[in-house]
Amino acid sequence: MSRSGNRRPENHKISRELFVLTYGALVAQLCKDYENDEDVNKYLDSMGYNIGIRLIEDFLARSAVRKCRSYSETAEIIAQVAFKMYLGITPTVTRSNPAGNEFSLVLGKNPLVDFVEELPETRSSLCYCGLLCGAIRGALEMVHLAAEVTFIQDTLKGDDVTEIGIRFLRKVENKKPKRNKSEQYQK
Amino acid sequence: MSRSGNRRPENHKISRELFVLTYGALVAQLCKDYENDEDVNKYLDSMGYNIGIRLIEDFLARSAVRKCRSYSETAEIIAQVAFKMYLGITPTVTRSNPAGNEFSLVLGKNPLVDFVEELPETRSSLCYCGLLCGAIRGALEMVHLAAEVTFIQDTLKGDDVTEIGIRFLRKVENKKPKRNKSEQYQK
Repeated sequence: MSRSGNRRPENHKISRELFVLTYGALVAQLCKDYENDEDVNKYLDSMGYNIGIRLIEDFLARSAVRKCRSYSETAEIIAQVAFKMYLGITPTVTRSNPAGNEFSLVLGKNPLVDFVEELPETRSSLCYCGLLCGAIRGALEMVHLAAEVTFIQDTLKGDDVTEIGIRFLRKVENKKPKRNKSEQYQK
Repeated sequence: MSRSGNRRPENHKISRELFVLTYGALVAQLCKDYENDEDVNKYLDSMGYNIGIRLIEDFLARSAVRKCRSYSETAEIIAQVAFKMYLGITPTVTRSNPAGNEFSLVLGKNPLVDFVEELPETRSSLCYCGLLCGAIRGALEMVHLAAEVTFIQDTLKGDDVTEIGIRFLRKVENKKPKRNKSEQYQK
């Protein structure tokens, strides 16, 4: 990223349609390359992961978000800050299990499929937006949060909404606010 | 585009970094698929063309730009409105020939290469941002303007700036402002 070293303040905001169409071209290319939907899904997830581990730096710099204190807070930040920033939408967050480590992001409208009518019959298992799951997983990993991220519902498959499930993999701890070292020693 | 039929007014603006990284993934995939740079360039151009012919509708709707009266005006609109809208930058326009049908868009900074250090030695003929040329060509064709669009300079190849050349293919006419039918009959 040497080129961005002495970057002047500039407008990073763009209309998302060129992105959405470019994403469509990427998925189409992968479908041309791999006959099997599972393979396409795997590659989309893996590309997303590689994007996520790079995007997190931009996200932290641009959002000024600090360390989250709970999985719930992390899920909210993904929905309200990250989705807003990179896709222009704000999914609704719901907690999916009593243990408090599973969440759903529900997208009433998924801009990534704006130009897609429906999946072809031969591609019924395609996870068209799989790159998003990979990107979330990759970004979370970079802030030391292991998670499984999968599509639970998909409007392209006839569901009413798009729902992304995030399952944080470490046990939920009843975290007390962490004291810094000097405070600990003071005790 | 059935899904966007009863679209509520919404924010289409996004930060461009996810787009830039996704574009990188697309180019990387094509490089994996095609050994020859020329083939990758051809596919990028062709994908761009297919994107341009779809994007123009969004552009006209969102920009409220009317029919341009000269090639010069068209080039300015591409630089000041389209580039601003979809890439967040405004290239400088220069006219390249006395006949007035060739123009250059000069990008001091090309956001599409933000995360790219340099091209690998084995990819020295790669036209990394070739999709842009195809997209401009496709969009122009949809408003009945045939054009050749090519990269003239590229920072990834050691040039100081990125320069996109647009050559409009029909002869330049000294167009008089068109009157509408009723005015013509009045004469």
